Amino acid sequence: MTSSTQIQLAKRPTGWPDHENFRTAVVDLPALAEGEVRVSNEFMSVDPYMRGRMNEGKSYVPPFQVGEVMNGGAVGRVIESRDETLAVGTPVLHNQGWRDLAQGPASEFRAVEELPGLALSVYLGTLGMTGLTAWVGLLEIAGMKPGDTVFVSGAAGAVGSMVGQIARLKGAARVIGSAGSQEKIDLLTSKYGFDAAFNYKDGDIAGQLAAAAPEGIDVYFDNVGGEHLEAAIGAMNDGGRVALCGAISQYNATEPGPGPRNMANLVTRGLRLQGFTVGNYAQHLGAFAEQAGAWVAAGDLVFDETVVDGLENAVDAFLSLMRGGNTGKMVVKL
Amino acid sequence: MTSSTQIQLAKRPTGWPDHENFRTAVVDLPALAEGEVRVSNEFMSVDPYMRGRMNEGKSYVPPFQVGEVMNGGAVGRVIESRDETLAVGTPVLHNQGWRDLAQGPASEFRAVEELPGLALSVYLGTLGMTGLTAWVGLLEIAGMKPGDTVFVSGAAGAVGSMVGQIARLKGAARVIGSAGSQEKIDLLTSKYGFDAAFNYKDGDIAGQLAAAAPEGIDVYFDNVGGEHLEAAIGAMNDGGRVALCGAISQYNATEPGPGPRNMANLVTRGLRLQGFTVGNYAQHLGAFAEQAGAWVAAGDLVFDETVVDGLENAVDAFLSLMRGGNTGKMVVKL
Repeated sequence: MTSSTQIQLAKRPTGWPDHENFRTAVVDLPALAEGEVRVSNEFMSVDPYMRGRMNEGKSYVPPFQVGEVMNGGAVGRVIESRDETLAVGTPVLHNQGWRDLAQGPASEFRAVEELPGLALSVYLGTLGMTGLTAWVGLLEIAGMKPGDTVFVSGAAGAVGSMVGQIARLKGAARVIGSAGSQEKIDLLTSKYGFDAAFNYKDGDIAGQLAAAAPEGIDVYFDNVGGEHLEAAIGAMNDGGRVALCGAISQYNATEPGPGPRNMANLVTRGLRLQGFTVGNYAQHLGAFAEQAGAWVAAGDLVFDETVVDGLENAVDAFLSLMRGGNTGKMVVKL
Repeated sequence: MTSSTQIQLAKRPTGWPDHENFRTAVVDLPALAEGEVRVSNEFMSVDPYMRGRMNEGKSYVPPFQVGEVMNGGAVGRVIESRDETLAVGTPVLHNQGWRDLAQGPASEFRAVEELPGLALSVYLGTLGMTGLTAWVGLLEIAGMKPGDTVFVSGAAGAVGSMVGQIARLKGAARVIGSAGSQEKIDLLTSKYGFDAAFNYKDGDIAGQLAAAAPEGIDVYFDNVGGEHLEAAIGAMNDGGRVALCGAISQYNATEPGPGPRNMANLVTRGLRLQGFTVGNYAQHLGAFAEQAGAWVAAGDLVFDETVVDGLENAVDAFLSLMRGGNTGKMVVKL
């Protein structure tokens, strides 16, 4: 009998998660039923939103269950098939997450195309949910228009680095990013084409943002929440829009922090704050994938990956992600 | 020479304003130039937004200047005219505010129709900027749809009482209001057709809202800010929308209060918060006035006015408004 190694949620965290919240289990896999496939994973995704799923209670995706595997995006290759649409060797994308072998009905696996010079992990990041998140948030939620000044926090992360580049490619007048190290800041301006970038760990986020955007901002793509959000609301021009994608600064807080003190600006400047989760915008995947694929092929859209080797290091990868240890998309290579 | 009595801003307030912030002045009026009219005011408007204009600095309308008159909506009748379009006796609406006589180019005065059984003050409230504010906020900003559950704070105020009624007339499934006295609460359900109402001064706004809206709310029309806004965000269903019209709970604070602690709900529930000021939506005035006029004529839209007699009592009226001393639109009758 074949067995699979998987990582399960052992215990819900209070505040910052640690190794004790996870456990590794080896489970026997049943033989494939008709219509099923077995997949050997090559890359799996670790994402900030998974922290929310470790909590009990309603979120935009149901919580992980204690004792169950940490689900999420993964790519691999079919190694055994009882389904005629997915032959052995086919590269596939699925959502079975943190395990070495995945199996189930073929409908749970989506065949993807191998692209020249690109690892399959691109479907977890730039051409996957990460990229779609950037696209939807910037264009649909914030309604970015050519000529806008755009600010994005967590700008060296997987989503943030895409947001900045899409903004530029779509005609933003000025693109500003914040990140948490000098190395990342350098990358934003040298590689990703940001016009200005600053290190939020230097403090005075509002002051640094004002200096980087002397004429104010029109769009803010928020990956961080907290002080960043207040600073952005303070810097907004009339009619400004905020796409709220996540608030990594708050994910591990045991008490919710206070909201922005300058909410009054929403009225006086006619601002809009809108939260979203990409799962509700899957209808944009086609348009996004076509455009993003063309940009990647042309070299207009570049990306970094932080690749961690081995399922046994997945927990460390995730914990590091929570503290900004990644540049670009973080994936675990199996 | 004719003289006019007017009320000026004497000194900018810190925190709650008082009589010392105003002064009454008698000024001589020049003779009318060609194309000008002189108007004897009958009613003038006192509004919460005026508190913001007493501060220095950018708001959605420029601040009042110290030593200048408190401008704002007023209605009166032409008593002298050097313009052929506005004959003596014509009722007019204008923005020259707190004074007994107003004069200037005819273009600054808009002729209005006398409606059977209605005082001219209706053009300051239900059929004026107040009503348009309710209409735009509910329908354009919050995008209320038939079947929505709608919550409005400051519900016995001029804007709030309109919001609740427009929501009902436009097919809301349930309309909930909050106000600051038992008398107002009774009025909401008995006269304005709210399905439920509660007194925020009883405390636990979140708990009272949850009890009144066991299935959550889809739209919140915010006149109050602060704890009300946090409670509403907590009660929002997926895809909920907030129209931020004002935050009277914050207007007289010397330090801005913290924002909602539950901003994370914006992401997980896909919520939208949008501020607005009615001045940017004047293009809706025609559609609004037609519909609201028909509703008023049919008795479907009712309203209260709190009428204070005499220009000499205008400051007291305004100070009382800040503490919720009004039911419906507050006007000063001259």
